[in-house]
Amino acid sequence: MAQSNKLLAGIELGGTKCVCILGTGPDDVRAVERLPTGEREETMRQIEAVLDRWRSQHGAPRALGIASFGPVDMRAGSPTYGFITSTTKPGWRNTDIAQRLGRRFGGPVGFDTDVNGAALAEGRWGAAKGLDDFAYVTVGTGIGVGLIVRGKSVFGMNHTELGHIRVARKPGDKFPGMCPFHGDCIEGLASGPAIEARVGKPASQLSPDDPAWDFVAHGIAQLLHTMVLTTAPSRIFLGGGVLSAQTHLFERIQQELKRSLNGYVEAPELEQGIAQFVVPPGLGSMAGPLGALALAADAEMASTLSPPLPTAASR
Amino acid sequence: MAQSNKLLAGIELGGTKCVCILGTGPDDVRAVERLPTGEREETMRQIEAVLDRWRSQHGAPRALGIASFGPVDMRAGSPTYGFITSTTKPGWRNTDIAQRLGRRFGGPVGFDTDVNGAALAEGRWGAAKGLDDFAYVTVGTGIGVGLIVRGKSVFGMNHTELGHIRVARKPGDKFPGMCPFHGDCIEGLASGPAIEARVGKPASQLSPDDPAWDFVAHGIAQLLHTMVLTTAPSRIFLGGGVLSAQTHLFERIQQELKRSLNGYVEAPELEQGIAQFVVPPGLGSMAGPLGALALAADAEMASTLSPPLPTAASR
Repeated sequence: MAQSNKLLAGIELGGTKCVCILGTGPDDVRAVERLPTGEREETMRQIEAVLDRWRSQHGAPRALGIASFGPVDMRAGSPTYGFITSTTKPGWRNTDIAQRLGRRFGGPVGFDTDVNGAALAEGRWGAAKGLDDFAYVTVGTGIGVGLIVRGKSVFGMNHTELGHIRVARKPGDKFPGMCPFHGDCIEGLASGPAIEARVGKPASQLSPDDPAWDFVAHGIAQLLHTMVLTTAPSRIFLGGGVLSAQTHLFERIQQELKRSLNGYVEAPELEQGIAQFVVPPGLGSMAGPLGALALAADAEMASTLSPPLPTAASR
Repeated sequence: MAQSNKLLAGIELGGTKCVCILGTGPDDVRAVERLPTGEREETMRQIEAVLDRWRSQHGAPRALGIASFGPVDMRAGSPTYGFITSTTKPGWRNTDIAQRLGRRFGGPVGFDTDVNGAALAEGRWGAAKGLDDFAYVTVGTGIGVGLIVRGKSVFGMNHTELGHIRVARKPGDKFPGMCPFHGDCIEGLASGPAIEARVGKPASQLSPDDPAWDFVAHGIAQLLHTMVLTTAPSRIFLGGGVLSAQTHLFERIQQELKRSLNGYVEAPELEQGIAQFVVPPGLGSMAGPLGALALAADAEMASTLSPPLPTAASR
């Protein structure tokens, strides 16, 4: 895709920090501001102040993208469209994000989950360029999945929450899991905090030959097995803090996935070898903020293709 | 959707029988012919003979739809587009279905899996009318899922094979499963033959209070849990031979699903109650043949919206 010269603003709202970004793409980032995700009113005001300042310094961006931690309401026409809904983060339950920032901003607004945003950024500028069906998996504080089908993030009655599927357990794994909702769903079994709860120290400090990794790799491979048999992404991008600190995991997960699928799916993407199918993302730590920018770019494009509709966020 | 008066032909190619259908929709079926799915060359010739006869008796249909047992190749541009690929059905591996029938037929051809076809028929004429994101699950000889996202069946590097995901096992369930590829995937645990292998008699003859049903309901609920957290269909249509013979299963599956999700997903579709979310399909035993007709209708519509492209099936 040709580099656009349209100025865009993005907000990546994470559970611990918020990254505001201004630019046209990864090669043209004009400004980045990081702030802690603290008390919600104060945080929202700080974000609004950044947007106001950028507007006076750089001119009005053409669109705003917001990639937020979830769960979020993405239902077109819902009164709470653009809200963070049932989060466990104290003070942030039922918080209007996109409608409020949309009113302040005034132009087209894109809104999606942080992982869907990151996936779309990989598709637009990163390792997923040219792919229409792919997935972005991040294993860190939680397990998040951005799921792209026919070039768009999936949204039915809700966005994807693949981190909360329950997977087949590896025999011998007795860890009860630590998800407050599901116990041993995959996030409850294999996220960073889950690994720490298994072994009593941070995942990053665990020796690569610790037997806990067998259970973790098995669980993540089961998540990938499910994805292959559900929307059948043509590549899976696998990253996040746990993976970057423990690079041996990559090959283990690939081999577990191959063993688990057991030749059932015949597709060129798999026949090229599992190492070309499960790969690291391309944008590294910038995937999140660039995800917000990708959502802005999509919103800008949608606004030029059709007359601006009164979306919930711009009403 | 208004009833079309465009004559369509459909072929539902199942593993044991094939249903050819001619008409414009469920209220206007002009002809149905059933034949056994036997030796492949003989079966294909019989299908071609039906199409030829219908053309001379009723005039040329506007489009042909083929809903086939799988796995099938649905990759646009693939040399083996429209083929049945790695089936275990003797003699049918790597069989050209859609290209061959497309050449004989000469007009627009739609091709998909039998379950995706049935799902699309439910969307066009049945219980899923008006829904853009939904799923059709059939529990019978196998476990098949038709998965509709934004009005279309999902296809990444492959079609959905959700029946082969591995699910969390209910504690105490020691049945090893009987899928030749995966052992205890959900099809290996809860399909009709799997239930028979568990208890030594056909699923239809099993008492509703047999303890095996707990394991079966749990497994199917896990499949549904995964679907809710993956593409988040706004309704799940659940049918097939096992369900129709054992109607008590329905409520058990609903309750297991509710317990398993544990309030994590907040969506009006779930808040209306699980009995409105997991429901029977509307077209009954006609869903399969009407699925083929729905694929024909989609192919006809696509051919009028854009200049006919040389698809693999029509080259």
